[in-house]
Amino acid sequence: MRLHLSTWPDIEAYLQKSKTIVIPIGSTEQHGPNGLVGTDALCPEIIAEAAAKQRTFLIGPTFSVGVAQHHLGFPGSMTLRPTTVIATMKDWTDSLTRHGFERIFWLNGHGGNTATIQAAFAEIYAERSLRQAGHNENMDLRLKAVNWWELPGVMSVCTQQFPSGDGMHATASEVAVTYAAYPDQVRNVEMSPRIAPVGRFRDADHYRKTFPDGRIGSDPSQATPEKGQIIIDAAAKSLCHQLDLFEGETE
Amino acid sequence: MRLHLSTWPDIEAYLQKSKTIVIPIGSTEQHGPNGLVGTDALCPEIIAEAAAKQRTFLIGPTFSVGVAQHHLGFPGSMTLRPTTVIATMKDWTDSLTRHGFERIFWLNGHGGNTATIQAAFAEIYAERSLRQAGHNENMDLRLKAVNWWELPGVMSVCTQQFPSGDGMHATASEVAVTYAAYPDQVRNVEMSPRIAPVGRFRDADHYRKTFPDGRIGSDPSQATPEKGQIIIDAAAKSLCHQLDLFEGETE
Amino acid sequence: MRLHLSTWPDIEAYLQKSKTIVIPIGSTEQHGPNGLVGTDALCPEIIAEAAAKQRTFLIGPTFSVGVAQHHLGFPGSMTLRPTTVIATMKDWTDSLTRHGFERIFWLNGHGGNTATIQAAFAEIYAERSLRQAGHNENMDLRLKAVNWWELPGVMSVCTQQFPSGDGMHATASEVAVTYAAYPDQVRNVEMSPRIAPVGRFRDADHYRKTFPDGRIGSDPSQATPEKGQIIIDAAAKSLCHQLDLFEGETE
Amino acid sequence: MRLHLSTWPDIEAYLQKSKTIVIPIGSTEQHGPNGLVGTDALCPEIIAEAAAKQRTFLIGPTFSVGVAQHHLGFPGSMTLRPTTVIATMKDWTDSLTRHGFERIFWLNGHGGNTATIQAAFAEIYAERSLRQAGHNENMDLRLKAVNWWELPGVMSVCTQQFPSGDGMHATASEVAVTYAAYPDQVRNVEMSPRIAPVGRFRDADHYRKTFPDGRIGSDPSQATPEKGQIIIDAAAKSLCHQLDLFEGETE
Amino acid sequence: MRLHLSTWPDIEAYLQKSKTIVIPIGSTEQHGPNGLVGTDALCPEIIAEAAAKQRTFLIGPTFSVGVAQHHLGFPGSMTLRPTTVIATMKDWTDSLTRHGFERIFWLNGHGGNTATIQAAFAEIYAERSLRQAGHNENMDLRLKAVNWWELPGVMSVCTQQFPSGDGMHATASEVAVTYAAYPDQVRNVEMSPRIAPVGRFRDADHYRKTFPDGRIGSDPSQATPEKGQIIIDAAAKSLCHQLDLFEGETE
Amino acid sequence: MRLHLSTWPDIEAYLQKSKTIVIPIGSTEQHGPNGLVGTDALCPEIIAEAAAKQRTFLIGPTFSVGVAQHHLGFPGSMTLRPTTVIATMKDWTDSLTRHGFERIFWLNGHGGNTATIQAAFAEIYAERSLRQAGHNENMDLRLKAVNWWELPGVMSVCTQQFPSGDGMHATASEVAVTYAAYPDQVRNVEMSPRIAPVGRFRDADHYRKTFPDGRIGSDPSQATPEKGQIIIDAAAKSLCHQLDLFEGETE
Repeated sequence: MRLHLSTWPDIEAYLQKSKTIVIPIGSTEQHGPNGLVGTDALCPEIIAEAAAKQRTFLIGPTFSVGVAQHHLGFPGSMTLRPTTVIATMKDWTDSLTRHGFERIFWLNGHGGNTATIQAAFAEIYAERSLRQAGHNENMDLRLKAVNWWELPGVMSVCTQQFPSGDGMHATASEVAVTYAAYPDQVRNVEMSPRIAPVGRFRDADHYRKTFPDGRIGSDPSQATPEKGQIIIDAAAKSLCHQLDLFEGETE
Repeated sequence: MRLHLSTWPDIEAYLQKSKTIVIPIGSTEQHGPNGLVGTDALCPEIIAEAAAKQRTFLIGPTFSVGVAQHHLGFPGSMTLRPTTVIATMKDWTDSLTRHGFERIFWLNGHGGNTATIQAAFAEIYAERSLRQAGHNENMDLRLKAVNWWELPGVMSVCTQQFPSGDGMHATASEVAVTYAAYPDQVRNVEMSPRIAPVGRFRDADHYRKTFPDGRIGSDPSQATPEKGQIIIDAAAKSLCHQLDLFEGETE
Repeated sequence: MRLHLSTWPDIEAYLQKSKTIVIPIGSTEQHGPNGLVGTDALCPEIIAEAAAKQRTFLIGPTFSVGVAQHHLGFPGSMTLRPTTVIATMKDWTDSLTRHGFERIFWLNGHGGNTATIQAAFAEIYAERSLRQAGHNENMDLRLKAVNWWELPGVMSVCTQQFPSGDGMHATASEVAVTYAAYPDQVRNVEMSPRIAPVGRFRDADHYRKTFPDGRIGSDPSQATPEKGQIIIDAAAKSLCHQLDLFEGETE
Repeated sequence: MRLHLSTWPDIEAYLQKSKTIVIPIGSTEQHGPNGLVGTDALCPEIIAEAAAKQRTFLIGPTFSVGVAQHHLGFPGSMTLRPTTVIATMKDWTDSLTRHGFERIFWLNGHGGNTATIQAAFAEIYAERSLRQAGHNENMDLRLKAVNWWELPGVMSVCTQQFPSGDGMHATASEVAVTYAAYPDQVRNVEMSPRIAPVGRFRDADHYRKTFPDGRIGSDPSQATPEKGQIIIDAAAKSLCHQLDLFEGETE
Repeated sequence: MRLHLSTWPDIEAYLQKSKTIVIPIGSTEQHGPNGLVGTDALCPEIIAEAAAKQRTFLIGPTFSVGVAQHHLGFPGSMTLRPTTVIATMKDWTDSLTRHGFERIFWLNGHGGNTATIQAAFAEIYAERSLRQAGHNENMDLRLKAVNWWELPGVMSVCTQQFPSGDGMHATASEVAVTYAAYPDQVRNVEMSPRIAPVGRFRDADHYRKTFPDGRIGSDPSQATPEKGQIIIDAAAKSLCHQLDLFEGETE
Repeated sequence: MRLHLSTWPDIEAYLQKSKTIVIPIGSTEQHGPNGLVGTDALCPEIIAEAAAKQRTFLIGPTFSVGVAQHHLGFPGSMTLRPTTVIATMKDWTDSLTRHGFERIFWLNGHGGNTATIQAAFAEIYAERSLRQAGHNENMDLRLKAVNWWELPGVMSVCTQQFPSGDGMHATASEVAVTYAAYPDQVRNVEMSPRIAPVGRFRDADHYRKTFPDGRIGSDPSQATPEKGQIIIDAAAKSLCHQLDLFEGETE
């Protein structure tokens, strides 16, 4: 059930049964020679939609531009400043809690977002924590973020598919996930070197100099729609289980 | 050509030929009893994609949550504070100009965004205008926003389809456009009254009191996928022509 | 009745009878070869004061520097960034509602402010709309903005005075209004070309290149104090009527 | 010479001879039983205009709402948050330096603004100080703020006029200055007690409780237009001399 | 009693007896040829700790980087923008009032902080003053800032120790205070000229040009640990008395 | 070598040899029944100072209040909003790079800061990454953050000292480190239960309810100055080595 494809009476009815919403959050950034710029936004979206076929839950709009300053050396990459991400996540959360959503599950597709998401959580909770007794709305807000590849059981499936060269950026797994969903976007590009170098990065110029074609540690030429589908299936199943646990939390 | 479905070498190649990008911008808000919460984001996305079949241009990520504070009385509506929109549009623009994009066309699907988009343009231009001679990057930045229903020739097509009750919010036209793209989302809901009241609004409580089912001046039960397709075709064609003009601008 | 020329007991008494205040808002920017830099702030101030001779209402301080980044190519022009305007309007509104003012009428003299004023309204309303039930002060806040030349009946008077060359910036009408109030500031400047070019503008450098003497579409050499007075009279009368309607609003 | 009553060619010509501008800055706040809400904005404006009859210099727009949170217990008082003042002063300064103004003289009428004006100066200078060598525009910016009653020689004139009960807020002197400029606004109000209490204040509720009619230490019933004119004359003369010194500064 | 060296049960117990906390606030900036970069943070810390041996009160964390943009021409100087200071002081205050602290005494060691501290106070109070009746927490917040050298009786002791050349920046007194606490940091540096020039300053480049070794009006080569101790003793005693008065305030 | 205990000529000389600075960053928050509120700020400070006895490097001021909203249910805890941390870290970095510091090593003592520190890094780098070619200062800025207990080799020493009950918050190790430095602050408190519960937390109310005495998973009654010193020694040695590597980095 997607918020964008629902009517407000649909949501009113949904809130009678659940106070949970899943928000795919990703990035718009280069993903190497054969990966899509939208990969990090597409993956959580694809996985959430696959899961929603197995279990009823609401999927909010995709947060599609994240923290990607280090990728700006490659055309098409876009970034928000982290403070803009925090402001935006705060507005989204304020909107959702207004309606009674109390459990917001951010399914993340971009490692570079992780820190800022946690900072945003602290910013949001701080407004509550700084208030004196009696000045809080009577609401039990729970914010949770999970990187899709860290959903229990998923990483082992990825490794099974790509025993070598799955990598850290423009991974074979994430490219495969997008290929499964957009099979007409499959590109055959020879990687050189086959497995990209690994290392750390700072700003955009440094990143581009260190990782000339954008990949880190990966050989995404291994990606196929078939392998992607296997990963999607595993991730969707795991997400459903995580949502069961999240909705069931009592403490 | 969608940014999210392109690789960075694709964008590098594109920039050799064009410095233009189209960004669909909308809202996540109630659209009456039979309209989708995502309507305002979906419409410009749908129209841009239709146009992209006729003419080569790049479509950026959809800016999907806009200024919709007045809709918050209805479950599922989300808003950004206008200052958050400005910060976000500034970051997006800064990212795009970094790569050499000089002409950014915001195809807007939500009347409530219009003022804030223009304010954001002024904020962005102000950074350039406040600099002294010699302190600007050598770039001719052009920001343009058009509401899709105000693309030349489109409104008359809408009126032709819905001579009465097209309305101002949850319009028959916009609901029809989404129905054309998502035919499985067509809802048959009897409207009562058939045509919703018109009027002004202030904050969320006032809006809900004044427009109890969310519509303003419309009878969207008239919407059909067929009528929606006619509108999409007209809008896509008009958008292509507007982009020709925008890319051809020399002054 | 001007706030700046009242005592606090005067305002205390006024609030017993009315919760309305009119705030002239304008700009500090070039107005062509014979127009005053303060034109856009002076016009709403002049019109409000003329109206206040006919009808009791309170005039707040003039908001005199607005969104004028595009005029910065001409000496003396000043701008606020739109986000600064929003912060300021929010502080002014917060101050006024503290005292019980519920209806704030912004009489605007600068087209370039329009979008940002509306964005500020949305920002202010959003604070209320995002709160959950029971967390709002019990107040019915109404924000309204009208460009003085769009007060009902005024534009036709302007056109009558200046059938050709009234224009879009540094208009004959607005220059005439200031000449009526400041007759010692009348300048006789020959315009070349007589009627300035029309067109769009982006940042300050582009504006100055496109409109070399600052005017857009106007021949303000036609302005005289007499014609200005006719416009002031019409606008003042219309403003009074608009205030009757605004104060009488019940929904 | 007032910016608002000048044309841009006037300012262009002025800048050939001087890079100095005087900005009256005040507040909109209660001034006791017989003082005007605009007193603190009017006084520097009145004094600057009187001085401009003796010496050529440019007067910018009046910054009319300042830091007055402590007065909000009295109807009609308005405040900016200090951070809004800083943002605004920064935008004004950025605009003026764009044109080549290098010496900005803030003539202040409100003690409550002093700290925030200095904070704003530090904020503005910080942008320059934090830049590395070679990254500053080649400009020698000088910001100066003077409270009008601290212009050399003025306080002794005030004390001469009002040997007792001049006070700290709603002073006899400042009320007299406004009475001289607006003689039709003279109010005869008996003060009780004749001289108001003195003390410190915190927020608005505390201020109102401590100073029930708004005055601090003053008996402004002594104010007359005649005494006000004497003060204006002294202040205007002193301001001219200060401007000679400011323009003559070489270090 | 130092917050950093207390446990939370200690603080819980303290709050039963007192709602007062002292916060040393200073700066990280050059202090001439023989003064420590931390001088302005160290002095209030040293004095507060000395006082805490005579009287029970709580010392909060030291606010160690302040407004020092003008010192950035000298290596090691650090600054916050004033708006960052305001945000930080607001967060600290919000945290402390959460626990019931109502009287916050900022013991300041840097003249350049004074204005911004007062601006921060106004920003903090403004949040309370702008709220309507019934929307404030029931708390009597009192913010107070005192420069340590302006504690009653201290300046005369400083003058006694250094009859000439105490100065305005990198004063003999403040250097002596740090030497008393850190006797192994005593430096013997010959000053040239013996007493530094006096004057005003603007940004960092201007400051360095005007005051080549960083001092203003001082000869800190006179500083000794012994003289510093005399000043510390006087300041500590005075601080204790000020805290008695502050805690005893009832209005 | 501590910045606060250095003169500016000392720093000028230091910069001839090294462009590295270490900044201890921590928090001011409850640390259970026997831990100090300052623990997280004290630990990195203590370790850095111990390391500085073995290797020459500069220690900047301690960043002592961090992200601790979740601890606000316990008296004495203080927090910055994450956006305030980001603004502050940006100002500190801007100040340091002004002088030529290019390698800033943040030695962190509080897990709750980790995400916000990384977000701040991205915010700082983004300013560089968003600039077009030729608009960056010619500087190779490197920001690095390490939690002291994650310095290579340290955790195994901690585990050796406290095979059970070291825990996650108010750990035996961190309490021991502070006891080693402040042996007069050792408290004998019986823990009940001996080992605190583990789990996740959200806002302050939730934290206090879940972890009633503030500890998570720890038995800090095991802490002794002797064990603390062993940890300090290991951490100091490891820090020196890390600094060797950091200074030696060439890519």
